[in-house]
Amino acid sequence: MNKIVTIGREFGSGGRELGRRLAEVLGFDYYDKEILTEIAKKTELSEEYVKQVVECRPHSLYPITVAHSFSVGYNVGFNQAQAVYAAQSDIITELAAKSNCVIIGRCADYILKDRNPLRIFVYADVESKLARCKARNDGESLSDRQLQRQMKAVDKTRAAYYSFYTGLAWGDKQHYDLMINTSGVDLKNLAADLAGFVNK
Amino acid sequence: MNKIVTIGREFGSGGRELGRRLAEVLGFDYYDKEILTEIAKKTELSEEYVKQVVECRPHSLYPITVAHSFSVGYNVGFNQAQAVYAAQSDIITELAAKSNCVIIGRCADYILKDRNPLRIFVYADVESKLARCKARNDGESLSDRQLQRQMKAVDKTRAAYYSFYTGLAWGDKQHYDLMINTSGVDLKNLAADLAGFVNK
Repeated sequence: MNKIVTIGREFGSGGRELGRRLAEVLGFDYYDKEILTEIAKKTELSEEYVKQVVECRPHSLYPITVAHSFSVGYNVGFNQAQAVYAAQSDIITELAAKSNCVIIGRCADYILKDRNPLRIFVYADVESKLARCKARNDGESLSDRQLQRQMKAVDKTRAAYYSFYTGLAWGDKQHYDLMINTSGVDLKNLAADLAGFVNK
Repeated sequence: MNKIVTIGREFGSGGRELGRRLAEVLGFDYYDKEILTEIAKKTELSEEYVKQVVECRPHSLYPITVAHSFSVGYNVGFNQAQAVYAAQSDIITELAAKSNCVIIGRCADYILKDRNPLRIFVYADVESKLARCKARNDGESLSDRQLQRQMKAVDKTRAAYYSFYTGLAWGDKQHYDLMINTSGVDLKNLAADLAGFVNK
């Protein structure tokens, strides 16, 4: 069976970079935004819309809103969100069957649970996340305070999305094999160390 | 500066064995129960009493009980608990200054925070912890239910002790560098993988 690494991560923790570097060290395939492109193809929705559904619209995923939405005619949006998740599940399952790989986010840890992936969660302290965001220019014109608010909002969305589809708490250690604090850590070295965990 | 690894662990997670094996692989000193012996020497209390204070008597550490205890004459016990903690801090600081080492529990992560230790927390799912306890015969004559109750009680004590002296939540990922789930994991292999994290 292929070796699969899934990476959940707090915004700004460097989880994505760590995953990319780990895939490089291991010679594994790496899937991140590529998955959105595939979902768009499969569902015939625009990539931009798919991105909105999976990253920016947690409110349409909450049962309480869904219940309301039936009466105000939003159920099309909800059905599309479900279709996007179904497509995502199929695509992730296909990718995992194809080769050894590292997959970022997208509930891949849950979708692939029967394939026994190494489930990693990456986090860091606020200062370190702010520094990483600034270094990669994510919030060029934002103040620390604004950036921090954005970080919180993104993580809240990720948590809501994850919890809605898996019924589990995002970032709760019980659902991961390894939780890594990247505060002040060099991601290149970390990726090299981490490779040992996968290649056993 | 010496390399220090501290290991916090849930009861039955194999954290102690992992620490011992890691120290072996790395050629580091290993401190666990040895610390109690040293505390006993330093405080001139019996080792058994020291063990009680640090492992079995969280109620005497709670401020609310302490407040009560002044009126019922238990403050000697509280003062001794404080003396034990002070001795423990000194001993751990001395050991860390002496050589590279792995230290199990005892708030060592907090006591040594200025020395930048690699702070590991080890946990596992209940089934796996039960299996580990049985394999090492910790609860020979106990049923699963009794064993589970004991596991919970020990962890509760550890959490109360840690929180009392550090003001931090025991097992909360923010205070650790690496959180490792040992469910179904071979600890010997894990120790070898982990060595890479320390030797960087």
